[in-house]
Amino acid sequence: MTITPPVLSVFETLESEVRSYCRGWPAVFDRAQGSRLTDEDGHSYLDFFAGAGSLNYGHNNPVLKRALIDYIERDGITHGLDMATTAKRAFLESFQDVVLRPRDLPYKVMFPGPTGTNAVESALKLARKVKNRESIVSFTNAFHGMSLGSLAVTGNAFKRAGAGIPLVHGTPMPFDNYFDGQVPDFLWFERLLGDQGSGLNKPAAVIVETVQGEGGINVARPEWLRALSELCERQDMLLIVDDIQMGCGRTGGFFSFEEAGITPDIVTLSKSISGYGLPMALTLFKPELDIWEPGEHNGTFRGNNPAFVTAAAALNTYWADGQMEKQTLARGEQVERALLAIVEECEPDSVSFRGRGLVWGMEFQDKPRAGAICRRAFELGLLLETSGPESEVVKLLPALTVTPEELDEGLRTLARAVRETA
Amino acid sequence: MTITPPVLSVFETLESEVRSYCRGWPAVFDRAQGSRLTDEDGHSYLDFFAGAGSLNYGHNNPVLKRALIDYIERDGITHGLDMATTAKRAFLESFQDVVLRPRDLPYKVMFPGPTGTNAVESALKLARKVKNRESIVSFTNAFHGMSLGSLAVTGNAFKRAGAGIPLVHGTPMPFDNYFDGQVPDFLWFERLLGDQGSGLNKPAAVIVETVQGEGGINVARPEWLRALSELCERQDMLLIVDDIQMGCGRTGGFFSFEEAGITPDIVTLSKSISGYGLPMALTLFKPELDIWEPGEHNGTFRGNNPAFVTAAAALNTYWADGQMEKQTLARGEQVERALLAIVEECEPDSVSFRGRGLVWGMEFQDKPRAGAICRRAFELGLLLETSGPESEVVKLLPALTVTPEELDEGLRTLARAVRETA
Amino acid sequence: MTITPPVLSVFETLESEVRSYCRGWPAVFDRAQGSRLTDEDGHSYLDFFAGAGSLNYGHNNPVLKRALIDYIERDGITHGLDMATTAKRAFLESFQDVVLRPRDLPYKVMFPGPTGTNAVESALKLARKVKNRESIVSFTNAFHGMSLGSLAVTGNAFKRAGAGIPLVHGTPMPFDNYFDGQVPDFLWFERLLGDQGSGLNKPAAVIVETVQGEGGINVARPEWLRALSELCERQDMLLIVDDIQMGCGRTGGFFSFEEAGITPDIVTLSKSISGYGLPMALTLFKPELDIWEPGEHNGTFRGNNPAFVTAAAALNTYWADGQMEKQTLARGEQVERALLAIVEECEPDSVSFRGRGLVWGMEFQDKPRAGAICRRAFELGLLLETSGPESEVVKLLPALTVTPEELDEGLRTLARAVRETA
Amino acid sequence: MTITPPVLSVFETLESEVRSYCRGWPAVFDRAQGSRLTDEDGHSYLDFFAGAGSLNYGHNNPVLKRALIDYIERDGITHGLDMATTAKRAFLESFQDVVLRPRDLPYKVMFPGPTGTNAVESALKLARKVKNRESIVSFTNAFHGMSLGSLAVTGNAFKRAGAGIPLVHGTPMPFDNYFDGQVPDFLWFERLLGDQGSGLNKPAAVIVETVQGEGGINVARPEWLRALSELCERQDMLLIVDDIQMGCGRTGGFFSFEEAGITPDIVTLSKSISGYGLPMALTLFKPELDIWEPGEHNGTFRGNNPAFVTAAAALNTYWADGQMEKQTLARGEQVERALLAIVEECEPDSVSFRGRGLVWGMEFQDKPRAGAICRRAFELGLLLETSGPESEVVKLLPALTVTPEELDEGLRTLARAVRETA
Repeated sequence: MTITPPVLSVFETLESEVRSYCRGWPAVFDRAQGSRLTDEDGHSYLDFFAGAGSLNYGHNNPVLKRALIDYIERDGITHGLDMATTAKRAFLESFQDVVLRPRDLPYKVMFPGPTGTNAVESALKLARKVKNRESIVSFTNAFHGMSLGSLAVTGNAFKRAGAGIPLVHGTPMPFDNYFDGQVPDFLWFERLLGDQGSGLNKPAAVIVETVQGEGGINVARPEWLRALSELCERQDMLLIVDDIQMGCGRTGGFFSFEEAGITPDIVTLSKSISGYGLPMALTLFKPELDIWEPGEHNGTFRGNNPAFVTAAAALNTYWADGQMEKQTLARGEQVERALLAIVEECEPDSVSFRGRGLVWGMEFQDKPRAGAICRRAFELGLLLETSGPESEVVKLLPALTVTPEELDEGLRTLARAVRETA
Repeated sequence: MTITPPVLSVFETLESEVRSYCRGWPAVFDRAQGSRLTDEDGHSYLDFFAGAGSLNYGHNNPVLKRALIDYIERDGITHGLDMATTAKRAFLESFQDVVLRPRDLPYKVMFPGPTGTNAVESALKLARKVKNRESIVSFTNAFHGMSLGSLAVTGNAFKRAGAGIPLVHGTPMPFDNYFDGQVPDFLWFERLLGDQGSGLNKPAAVIVETVQGEGGINVARPEWLRALSELCERQDMLLIVDDIQMGCGRTGGFFSFEEAGITPDIVTLSKSISGYGLPMALTLFKPELDIWEPGEHNGTFRGNNPAFVTAAAALNTYWADGQMEKQTLARGEQVERALLAIVEECEPDSVSFRGRGLVWGMEFQDKPRAGAICRRAFELGLLLETSGPESEVVKLLPALTVTPEELDEGLRTLARAVRETA
Repeated sequence: MTITPPVLSVFETLESEVRSYCRGWPAVFDRAQGSRLTDEDGHSYLDFFAGAGSLNYGHNNPVLKRALIDYIERDGITHGLDMATTAKRAFLESFQDVVLRPRDLPYKVMFPGPTGTNAVESALKLARKVKNRESIVSFTNAFHGMSLGSLAVTGNAFKRAGAGIPLVHGTPMPFDNYFDGQVPDFLWFERLLGDQGSGLNKPAAVIVETVQGEGGINVARPEWLRALSELCERQDMLLIVDDIQMGCGRTGGFFSFEEAGITPDIVTLSKSISGYGLPMALTLFKPELDIWEPGEHNGTFRGNNPAFVTAAAALNTYWADGQMEKQTLARGEQVERALLAIVEECEPDSVSFRGRGLVWGMEFQDKPRAGAICRRAFELGLLLETSGPESEVVKLLPALTVTPEELDEGLRTLARAVRETA
Repeated sequence: MTITPPVLSVFETLESEVRSYCRGWPAVFDRAQGSRLTDEDGHSYLDFFAGAGSLNYGHNNPVLKRALIDYIERDGITHGLDMATTAKRAFLESFQDVVLRPRDLPYKVMFPGPTGTNAVESALKLARKVKNRESIVSFTNAFHGMSLGSLAVTGNAFKRAGAGIPLVHGTPMPFDNYFDGQVPDFLWFERLLGDQGSGLNKPAAVIVETVQGEGGINVARPEWLRALSELCERQDMLLIVDDIQMGCGRTGGFFSFEEAGITPDIVTLSKSISGYGLPMALTLFKPELDIWEPGEHNGTFRGNNPAFVTAAAALNTYWADGQMEKQTLARGEQVERALLAIVEECEPDSVSFRGRGLVWGMEFQDKPRAGAICRRAFELGLLLETSGPESEVVKLLPALTVTPEELDEGLRTLARAVRETA
């Protein structure tokens, strides 16, 4: 496929320099279906990024699309603040019936505003209010969002510097396997907590991703998550699982922490919760934590009702039985086999890979190579992104609805890009 | 109209106690058109709140609806991160042609995430980065959002307490008319700035609303805004106008600051920018301030393309000529006349009113009366909200597309509610 | 008198550039008695600075000197941490009998470390602990010390910048007469406190100097102090009077707030409390505030026992009757008359003066002139310093034990320096 | 010896509850000589605490006493702000000749105010100014002082809570041997520094004690200090050694870091620098760091000239040759032998000990026993204190001038107290 660089004039002249993805993918996209995007020149791209995990059911999923258009056609409430609506009720009931009850999860549901960072901000507020402490522990290479509260528990130095003020009240701890098994889990954290002279302000909560997506596809082991959960309980700290990118089935189960068998105190969801790429977020918490005063946290777009409609449709369509989880794990095995083959073709120790469900990462010793692979993949019609603190990891985040054939096609393109950048 | 309290079960049992509007309006809304909502029992409500200013063109505006459905039907990109898309280009071009160019505004456009607080957070980041100072001046009774950065420049003590940490780096100054003309404008602010011993950390920026919506419909005079703008220039501080609620035509002109003839350094827009109640926000700034590094601020839902579609349609439909502004001012005069009549019927000095364009407030000396009026209005089928630090102001925020007849109907209901709560 | 610039070698080569007073007074001082210093070349200087208010009883006061030498000779405890000692008991008893009881002041006494900033830090800690709030209100041009807690409530921008971090949790309010009577007292402060939407974090305490020494000899009126005291009580904020420079008789009474008839909740004392220029400080507070845990605040040099000895001697010698106060007020009138005469000789409106007791300031419209006068005075054998945010005020701070003749001599020298810099 | 509890009335009724040492040593001390204190009832106490390390040359050392009385008698300058004085010059010259030059140390000397916390505050200010970063790394169980800047880098949770505000901008790292050799030195610190996604704000400086006195007599190995010094250099962070308690010969050499062969960028000294227990402190730094503006940090009691006199006398008397160091090491061996004997008498693993020079600690598994030993020692006429986060360590800090006989006497009393509390 030959790609003529498009005339990006209005983007280049009017839009801010802050834009980023569009630089790596110099095309003007026009429409999309499932795992395919088409640009205005008619070129087709296979999508292995899925809106950074916001499109687990693919672009413009036809089932959800139908529900959405019906809702708009019949003039259902579009903007509902936090008013009770029939669409919100339908969503809440589906969420209760399809997600919470079968998993025996006792959570109350909060609509904190339609983005992930709204959910994280509300989770941190609630934890601080409940425990009456200001300090939060996060992990190395965590990513939780870009507003000041979330940014303070995010690891990336470049993003943090963007705050323009010193970020405080957060302390990083080593994520699972940070020292390649050299050091017992939580050795440092537990010592600090147990030592009255350690200088660690007692945390209100710990916030963790089970798989760090932005941080480089770092996968926490179930036993590490269980130990963390126990540590939190023992030390009277709340456990917040930020499941914004890894929830909604990305790792197999609906919640990424199910595999570990833990029940976090607070959970944040966003990205794929609406199912259709529409802005929506949830904050879930144990009922005894629901000490919010009415309106203590609010926001204009908490009631994005079209998103509730597609969200309910997605739950009812994909999560009423265990098929989705099985399929994701099967697709994951397909990816794993392909990555293993790619790695075996490479120089020994030049690349490693890891993942869970349908999130995978390939880390290159030669760090810039990851970016080169993504650039080459784009030329070959495959959308791939890097992650990790130095963009050294190629990140695979296909839609969960990707077909085995699409997956195979994309993995072959990836293999070619790897070869061609060796 | 008789209203049977609905069974709100799932809202009461599953949704968090943080919900608020739904408590004052105990109905389950189902659909909406223009200025009317209908609940699931078929009751109809006239809407004088307009999604807190997010529905300036009414609910489910038919022109925008058509564009939206067409876009969805043809599988236009829904979730676009910050990728270039045809929908984004169409929006940017419309925004340039219809909004910026005719007003000679030189702004670069940033998509900071789809909510107002995203826009404010990005504005504060940028100001701090540009000036390399951390301090921001805000005004008494300001409201800028609920994430930590925005909350630190918000006045409301109850909302601030929700942060769970001391909010820092912000200093409040008196808003226009805070002392009823007793004190020269900016006396305190200018003295602090001019005095090397004042203890004020030199601010990077000043953030202001031209009309404080949440703060109680406090209207800044054009001359006050001009003086503020000059003060900022003289003192090397950036001027940020938060036009999230008052922009998009609410006060007449597209931007609320046009009347004052100033050009802020940074402008935030959200709420009605999508035109259809879909989450969307913009941060505008002078080109020389565009020193962002690629990706220094980001967010998953920056590219809510359906919102771009309705936003472009709204601009092209309503702002290609000067009709909208004229109509809003005319409707505003209708409101003003009605409020004057209501006030003249009341006890002397028990109530005052103020406003601009189609945002008006009635302040009651007997503060709880404002709430009582809203409750009575709801029973009479009119949606009205209070604002102000002690909810002492009845706030009128009808859609700009409200008909004179609807306006008249609502104002008569308001008059009745005022009478019946005397 | 001709002064040969001394060879300051070790000061210039070894001592840090941070040194300051020695730059304005380029002499190497050797010994001192009363109001006179002598440099190593035998030149004599009349001292109108008195160790920035630390030498209210003059240099090496013979009565205190005798007590000090006797104590050292007999091997009295020198360094006593916070142990009970006979010297500490003697001081505490004198302080109770001579200072607290006659004034009906109920204070508990804390030894917070031997410097003023230790006292301020402990006062702020205690206020925050008692009220469980972090915010402190200070005043424009306040000076409270150079450690981070004290610096955050200090006004001077240059000193604040030295912190190297943003100083937070303090909010400045206008000091008495900040607007030359244009604005009612406390208008801004009271409005902020009364307005739930003001954005002011509710303060734990207000810290104030009755006369701002470093800030430019700004004298608060008794009625302003009374109104402040009432405001604090009404609003449940603690009132801290920082009497470090203005206490110990500087303004006439032992405490500078006696004239206003108020009883602050917390008082800080240092500088002249030891009477001999030895490091010592006290924090006084109402007994119900004494909720400190043992050792919650500490410090190595809290028990500078030689200072307790001279402190007790000073109290017993000078404060057992009302003579000191009368004499100070008489000397103050002498100063006032002389300054009036000087001012009358000057260009109209080019200079103003103000003061209380034995602290006076002359403010020059031509700001650098104040420094020029001090430089000329030094050449003429008089030690004088500037103060104020732009060093525009000549500050008179003679020892309280200065004789009328010495006062007259110094004031004549001052008059000459004023004339010669016209 | 029988001790009648004294009537502590004025201490109990007038002095604040914050007092601490006096509670463990319920006597009223009157005079002292060398290593002996005498209370007002004539009881004598052997001092193994030495003013928390402020009395390295014993109480009222006769050589220094002579110099001090001579100086006072001849009316030398007592209070000198930062003016040049003959006493200051003599001190600076001695410090240069006796301390800096023989050790080839290039430091500039700053007088930051007369207490340790003044020195630490100035060191942190300077580091932040030089590096233009706000973050400081300190170590577990560090103690650096009680004003807000110093407290933020202090580990003790009880002291930190006293601040009344969240302490920020400091991050604790594990001190040497924190994990009993289980973990490679600086593994965590280096990983955080090297990882762009770690979430650690890049530090301006690292502040460390070579032996943590308050923290429990934790001794850093020379190789650990060297590695830290190299890490700081490699990572462009300043190294601050807080030598307030461990400097002035406590560990053998004049500076405690000499043994490790490192040259810190900044050094703080206080406690024993005056030699006589008089308040005095120094901040030393490499000349290229001396970017202070005149007066950017100041303080009233920076020029405590009597302390300069005793300080110079101490340097000239004790440090002109290498005798002091040799003697301290010899006395240290005497202590070590005695502690070994005591420990061997105890239950296995119930107690351990460690130290360097003349600072030693015995840690008891049964934590309250350390306090019981100190109480029993007091009854037996020996002043001993505990340290460590839970006061589980008996701390030996005798004067460096203690005689072998006194040392033997005290160690025998200690042994008896240990036995009697078994």
